[in-house]
Amino acid sequence: MTLNFEHVTLGQRVLFGSGKAAEHLANEVRRLGADRVMVIASEFETAIADNVSTLISPVLRWDEVVMHVPVEVAQKARDTAAAHQIDLLVSVGGGSTTGLAKAIALTTGVPIIAVPTTYAGSEATNVWGMTEAARKTTGVDDRVLPVTVIYDAALTLSLPVELSVASGLNGMAHCVDSLWAPKTDPINAALAAEGIRALSQGLRAIKASPQGLAGREQALYGAYLSAVAFASAGSGMHHKICHVLGGTFNLPHAQTHAIMLPYVLAFNSPAAPEASDRIAAAFGTADPNDGLQTLRKILEAPRALADYGFTLDNIDEAVEVAVPQIPATNPRHVDRESLAAVLTAATTGEDPKILTDL
Amino acid sequence: MTLNFEHVTLGQRVLFGSGKAAEHLANEVRRLGADRVMVIASEFETAIADNVSTLISPVLRWDEVVMHVPVEVAQKARDTAAAHQIDLLVSVGGGSTTGLAKAIALTTGVPIIAVPTTYAGSEATNVWGMTEAARKTTGVDDRVLPVTVIYDAALTLSLPVELSVASGLNGMAHCVDSLWAPKTDPINAALAAEGIRALSQGLRAIKASPQGLAGREQALYGAYLSAVAFASAGSGMHHKICHVLGGTFNLPHAQTHAIMLPYVLAFNSPAAPEASDRIAAAFGTADPNDGLQTLRKILEAPRALADYGFTLDNIDEAVEVAVPQIPATNPRHVDRESLAAVLTAATTGEDPKILTDL
Repeated sequence: MTLNFEHVTLGQRVLFGSGKAAEHLANEVRRLGADRVMVIASEFETAIADNVSTLISPVLRWDEVVMHVPVEVAQKARDTAAAHQIDLLVSVGGGSTTGLAKAIALTTGVPIIAVPTTYAGSEATNVWGMTEAARKTTGVDDRVLPVTVIYDAALTLSLPVELSVASGLNGMAHCVDSLWAPKTDPINAALAAEGIRALSQGLRAIKASPQGLAGREQALYGAYLSAVAFASAGSGMHHKICHVLGGTFNLPHAQTHAIMLPYVLAFNSPAAPEASDRIAAAFGTADPNDGLQTLRKILEAPRALADYGFTLDNIDEAVEVAVPQIPATNPRHVDRESLAAVLTAATTGEDPKILTDL
Repeated sequence: MTLNFEHVTLGQRVLFGSGKAAEHLANEVRRLGADRVMVIASEFETAIADNVSTLISPVLRWDEVVMHVPVEVAQKARDTAAAHQIDLLVSVGGGSTTGLAKAIALTTGVPIIAVPTTYAGSEATNVWGMTEAARKTTGVDDRVLPVTVIYDAALTLSLPVELSVASGLNGMAHCVDSLWAPKTDPINAALAAEGIRALSQGLRAIKASPQGLAGREQALYGAYLSAVAFASAGSGMHHKICHVLGGTFNLPHAQTHAIMLPYVLAFNSPAAPEASDRIAAAFGTADPNDGLQTLRKILEAPRALADYGFTLDNIDEAVEVAVPQIPATNPRHVDRESLAAVLTAATTGEDPKILTDL
């Protein structure tokens, strides 16, 4: 096999330590020489944000955080940041919170320290997204990449097991999809494999002992790797499908990824031997599909799109929108018929194996 | 195990493709908007440098490249670069060539594109080094990190098998040592493990088929990972010893690393189970020492320090200088006695196994 690739590594500092977020944040604020810090966290995460900010003195605390970052919210936050001469943004929360900080950084260039509380992974990418009139726009800009990410598994203890599982499998989908995404390369693949291993171990441990820190740490670490791999590799078949399911049918983000993943894996794996080997090795199983399904059973993961309001009647429309978006580099050719089969199985929660020999 | 670490990822673009260096370089010069390019390559690599520069028009070609980057050479190159208003440095060569480009970038801030022709790995680090009056000074500065690295395995075809082996095992030493170096972390470890796997496969293939590109590509890819892991993890026991052997006894760099590695591994591995498991898995063997020694036998790797002029009489002095430099975080405690045993075995080329139960 010939090695032929372009890999862009995004420069970033990662500070990892349970119970250390406040200390790490204070050190970073000092290191960056910031005077006027804006802390962004939704009102649901007020307690966590206060906790994390104990050792700094923010001049502004922003709690209007809305899913998919509506442009009006972003503009209001930008104006307020400018009025307060903010020189550092600190986001404490999941993807929507990091997303708002990115929207401010995009136009102002103010650096971000991200303190993630889920496994969304936005903190390790230079991708931003905003919605205007129900249409989502995304883009890539190095200014939105947080300069520092502070991971503190203690902050994720309040994330219920069910949400941890869905969010963690969303992270795992980043890893798996990056193995056959358009810009996949061996570096992404090595990071993705380590991410699958860490998420698999971490999620099992969270399920077994929801208040234990070890599993939460592994999952958070795995989520970070998943984001690094995904940011570099781009969206593959899995993400293109989920994007349509989320955008056109408004299905919940993490759960949709958790459900779709085994179906895309079962469909692609026969045509992607190298990716399959890596995934299997990361799970410690002979077959990648067995590894994922065993894990999903232990985790009692979300099972069928039908449970979230998607119906067999929606499949034609979903196929129509999604087929043209599937990358031509996907290991297995995707046409209307095969995508309909994948979506039908995912809708009803059928055994993904039927897709392998489709 | 608790995850507690700080990891700094250095942002960099990697372009990998055999036979594509000239094309990749021209694209990068255009992308960076550079007008006045200085190409640095020793006179021994004139043909390679000319080949790589075919599609660009350098305004300056510099061929005075000296091992360990003497300060006078660096100053002369800086003055010449300034006189020519150079806005981009292109280094084509091994560690000394990249090192000279770094010395210029350190004081001028001019960006570097590195085109490596060995497995030294300097191109992926922000570490610079210079010598003045036979004393080597090193430092860390992000300005010396090449913005882009262009890897073209075709450029390494002229590197003789023997040198490829020594240089490749030097890269492998970066990987292994980074697993127990002071700033080791799981991210470094994952990259190092992938580096060991790639170097092991690559060097075997080079030995079996010196003019084949596949092995050269794997080795170059592994060397890149080794440098990334090492730049982040720092120097462990192995590098501290080799630094003394090189600095005080003037032993050849790559060969010294190739010889010392199995002895440091045999000494540390009983006390470093996690690192041992990773190394063994990367070699595909049950025991890490077996994996390395089997590879070294196939490669007919350098075997004993005595073959390069080091004698048993030198051991006392080497121990004296090296012991205080061994990181306190080394998995196994190192005292004068144990280090003397390690060096004695390496000097005569004894079986490293005797160090395991020391």
